[in-house]
Amino acid sequence: MKPSDIVNHILNNNAPLPQKQKGHGAAPANIALVKYWGKRDSTLNLPMTSSFSLSLSQGAETKVTASETDQDSFILNGKETSHNIFAERLAAFLDLFRPHPQFYFHVSTHSSVPISAGLASSAAGFAALVLALDDFFGWQLDKRSLSVLARLGSGSACRSLWPGFVEWQAGSDLNGMDSHGIPLDVNWPALRVTPLIVSRAPKPIDSRTAMIQTQASSPLYASWPDKVASDLTLMKQAIGQQDFTRLGEIAESNALAMHACMMSAWPPICYHQPATLEAMHRVWALRKAGNPIYFTQDAGPNIKLLYLAPQQAHVDRLINEQAEVAV
Amino acid sequence: MKPSDIVNHILNNNAPLPQKQKGHGAAPANIALVKYWGKRDSTLNLPMTSSFSLSLSQGAETKVTASETDQDSFILNGKETSHNIFAERLAAFLDLFRPHPQFYFHVSTHSSVPISAGLASSAAGFAALVLALDDFFGWQLDKRSLSVLARLGSGSACRSLWPGFVEWQAGSDLNGMDSHGIPLDVNWPALRVTPLIVSRAPKPIDSRTAMIQTQASSPLYASWPDKVASDLTLMKQAIGQQDFTRLGEIAESNALAMHACMMSAWPPICYHQPATLEAMHRVWALRKAGNPIYFTQDAGPNIKLLYLAPQQAHVDRLINEQAEVAV
Repeated sequence: MKPSDIVNHILNNNAPLPQKQKGHGAAPANIALVKYWGKRDSTLNLPMTSSFSLSLSQGAETKVTASETDQDSFILNGKETSHNIFAERLAAFLDLFRPHPQFYFHVSTHSSVPISAGLASSAAGFAALVLALDDFFGWQLDKRSLSVLARLGSGSACRSLWPGFVEWQAGSDLNGMDSHGIPLDVNWPALRVTPLIVSRAPKPIDSRTAMIQTQASSPLYASWPDKVASDLTLMKQAIGQQDFTRLGEIAESNALAMHACMMSAWPPICYHQPATLEAMHRVWALRKAGNPIYFTQDAGPNIKLLYLAPQQAHVDRLINEQAEVAV
Repeated sequence: MKPSDIVNHILNNNAPLPQKQKGHGAAPANIALVKYWGKRDSTLNLPMTSSFSLSLSQGAETKVTASETDQDSFILNGKETSHNIFAERLAAFLDLFRPHPQFYFHVSTHSSVPISAGLASSAAGFAALVLALDDFFGWQLDKRSLSVLARLGSGSACRSLWPGFVEWQAGSDLNGMDSHGIPLDVNWPALRVTPLIVSRAPKPIDSRTAMIQTQASSPLYASWPDKVASDLTLMKQAIGQQDFTRLGEIAESNALAMHACMMSAWPPICYHQPATLEAMHRVWALRKAGNPIYFTQDAGPNIKLLYLAPQQAHVDRLINEQAEVAV
């Protein structure tokens, strides 16, 4: 099955012309509390396991128009970015939606999260793009279908269609039509997630490649799917009971186990920088001193702090201290 | 089965009096290239898996005499150390060998490796002690029996009875009489292992406790025994073919997987300090530049560099650079 088959299925084999001069979409970045790591189908971005995220207030905002030239053009945070891997990936995704082969897009995105630093910029970007395309072409698709389309661009993008908690159910259909986000209707106003930036250097290895290398070579990866299944159940229980300590423990443990799988791949995949360890030890020390602050970490050197509003002063101090030692 | 049963079995139920005024023993520290992590019997120090080590030129030298007071006394590197955990562990071990309950030992050990820094000081110490007791009591036991006795003091001590490569075969007997070191008769004069000290701070958690916590709570530990079995086979092949690249890859991958299991335990066990990551990234950068240098890491923040003699200049530079950034 190819991505184009899925798109044809969702759009009922129509390739409509734009209904508007300009399409607009906005979507939040999301941080996985139970991680997505490993694919069962890399063409359709179908995951080995379900995953679970919390959307941030930051994200991406995208405008789509028809290009007036004979090629796509991409503007990211005001800068032309037409000749890099990011642009290639976008163009390949847009191939799925051209009304005719000579139709080109102009896409302008503003991202309020740093790019390529493990801060879910691509998830927000693809989700915002799909929403903008829906607006541009007037598809009026339901959110689950849009989630499937966003997944074809970047797996975790399928969780960025909603605010709050979202579960990406792995699904079992070969065509992946049951593999999309589902929001969890829970409100937890005191819950905070704040990135602790220790490095803005680009990643040594992109998460797509890292995922494949982990699945192919980590002897510990065999235990990962069971870990995720168990964490997912416990996480939803913790949220149902608004038990922050459990939420923090499960999220931190899940992230550590994901990086453990990567470290045991060959060649080893290590997103940790010395400053990452510095930050982790600081969080553990704060916790030992009685402050319930936890972290999670994605495919990058930075960590994200999980805490409740009353801990904000400790978190601010942590961020200031880290800024002082950061290179 | 208790340790005293094993000792009675080995000594044929004799509790002989000393045959000499003074017993003497010396044993090397050893660095596991395929790690021992997890026990199937914690009373007898029987391991979940076999393991494989390389002995260092450094180690411990021990003298045993009868104490002239009514208690044991322990001298470590010239200092009295009678009232700490180290002394308690030694006294409990010596209980197995007292000719009568009121017999006390005076044990003086000189260790040329740093204590409690994950540098195998206890392995060398217990092996040297068992050799000194053999000399003192005139047991004249074979090396395998001495290896079993050393194992009762500290698991990895059973590998410190020989120089060079030693396999600790896990064995299957309930009494552990088949769980001891076996030397591998291979000479590889160009092979080097050099500690890269990044911190001399004592460990945050002793390896005995860390092992239990990993087994009890790491979801990835289930995959560890298979990883070890496979690494052990590959390691012996690599040594047979004097294939250093394979040896380095297997040793580094095995150590990373062991620490990966620890990181995914709860609470997480993290022996890595920021300087540990700094050192690892330096090794990886050297390797990328074409220098075949690998590392292994035990239950502490320091790493041990594995390389062949022609790389010595690069290793010296690495050690000097690390010394400059060390706190």
